[in-house]
Amino acid sequence: MKVFIEPIGKLINEFTKLPGVGAKTAQRYAYKIINMTESEAQDFANAILNVKKQVKYCTICGNFSESDVCDVCKNRPADVICVVKEPKDVIAIEKLNEFDGVYHVLHGTISPLDGIGPNDINIKGLLERIAKGGVKEVIMATNPDVEGEATAMYITSLVKPLGIKVSRLAHGIPVGTDLEYADEVSLARAFVDRKTL
Amino acid sequence: MKVFIEPIGKLINEFTKLPGVGAKTAQRYAYKIINMTESEAQDFANAILNVKKQVKYCTICGNFSESDVCDVCKNRPADVICVVKEPKDVIAIEKLNEFDGVYHVLHGTISPLDGIGPNDINIKGLLERIAKGGVKEVIMATNPDVEGEATAMYITSLVKPLGIKVSRLAHGIPVGTDLEYADEVSLARAFVDRKTL
Repeated sequence: MKVFIEPIGKLINEFTKLPGVGAKTAQRYAYKIINMTESEAQDFANAILNVKKQVKYCTICGNFSESDVCDVCKNRPADVICVVKEPKDVIAIEKLNEFDGVYHVLHGTISPLDGIGPNDINIKGLLERIAKGGVKEVIMATNPDVEGEATAMYITSLVKPLGIKVSRLAHGIPVGTDLEYADEVSLARAFVDRKTL
Repeated sequence: MKVFIEPIGKLINEFTKLPGVGAKTAQRYAYKIINMTESEAQDFANAILNVKKQVKYCTICGNFSESDVCDVCKNRPADVICVVKEPKDVIAIEKLNEFDGVYHVLHGTISPLDGIGPNDINIKGLLERIAKGGVKEVIMATNPDVEGEATAMYITSLVKPLGIKVSRLAHGIPVGTDLEYADEVSLARAFVDRKTL
């Protein structure tokens, strides 16, 4: 006898497609679904379908949006543009309530090893937005890894000659970390980027 | 601005209903769904709906089943009945390929603190199966916790006077562990070493 009857086996298989979910965890999730009421399960399935149906990308900045233009692009002045790799980076920054400019989502970073060049990510859209005028500063908020740095450098080389201020998020020791436990790269960067008090 | 647009927020909320899933993990799962193709998301949603539609309980033993009588009850001699708390315990035991009798799922254990008495779990069904004759042994495989032990004792007190052998899984299972999480070797040993009560 097969251990799982077919519908349960299929659901477990679907759950293992989620990041970091193995067979045991998928099994626990499946039991939870089995023990839900019919309408709870329906809500769950609908949430999955709706997210595919209703989530589009903003035609201006490339962020997640329910309409053609996202709420950020609709409601905020477009003089400071924060450039990020993915829509989830926008969410991380929005949670801070610190930044009140607009975003530009590249949907990737330049990575020659993976065959991703400057034309494969949305740099063209950024240049078009800048060409329309009114942009005072571009903040490069790509990840502090090799691809993110390379992408930041490349975009800087295109935007700076246009006479627009380009900045990069500061690197250094995470706040609240003991100096002795900080990783060496961050600590070295903190020295290089030290501020005069 | 709200951080998540509505369909994403809803999906994250659904994922947090799964056991052990917090806001951050739910967010990662939601991103994964957003990045799936339409048809992959459809498959996922269908798996959830189908499990609710197609998974019934066997009318004989109470195990998960696609039809009125499960594959185990259909294909195996019913002379040895293994009594478990939940359908997922059947799956844990079936994985061993050690036991070739049939099951009886109580759908709970006696737990006075939670207001669950002997009449709230499927003991009646077990007694009816025994009354039909042909049962040689009843193996009590409830969890080795207070409720599981109490339930095993209670059922023993009903079944033993009928002249039927009643046994209990041996203490190869680490005490305090739920049956579904027990390692397979210990669980197999527990079957081999079962004691007559």
